Amino acid sequence: MTQTIGIIAGILTASSLLPQVIKIIREKKAEDVSIMMLIILMLGVALWIYYGILREDLPIIVTNAFSLLLNITTVVLRLKYK
Amino acid sequence: MTQTIGIIAGILTASSLLPQVIKIIREKKAEDVSIMMLIILMLGVALWIYYGILREDLPIIVTNAFSLLLNITTVVLRLKYK
Repeated sequence: MTQTIGIIAGILTASSLLPQVIKIIREKKAEDVSIMMLIILMLGVALWIYYGILREDLPIIVTNAFSLLLNITTVVLRLKYK
Repeated sequence: MTQTIGIIAGILTASSLLPQVIKIIREKKAEDVSIMMLIILMLGVALWIYYGILREDLPIIVTNAFSLLLNITTVVLRLKYK
């Protein structure tokens, strides 16, 4: 039960950038999105992946790797549609 | 060492919305910021707090409570400066 809640929480926080990615692609603008937010989030998520590797915790690695992928996508789109 | 990395990772991901909040207050606009992103993130963060309570894990509760506070602030600002 507790673990299931953790997994759902992880999936939700990891995929939260997905609607932002879709919105930028649709509207072709993103100037209001903070680049500093994306950079700090990227550093945090990268550290979570490192933490997951050290703890040999696969769910942490996988959800944060997905989050990092979405984060990099958002940064590229943000720089394209500034 | 591992725990320190986890704590730094938690602080970074939890505070990543702070530059977004500052940017919106400064520029008084936020239409490019996805509300759906904020809602999914809010659900995820709320579940992380619940997970932290179940696991009696104070760092998880504290970092995610801070994240929730920033998230609610961003939602209010997003609705104000749409």
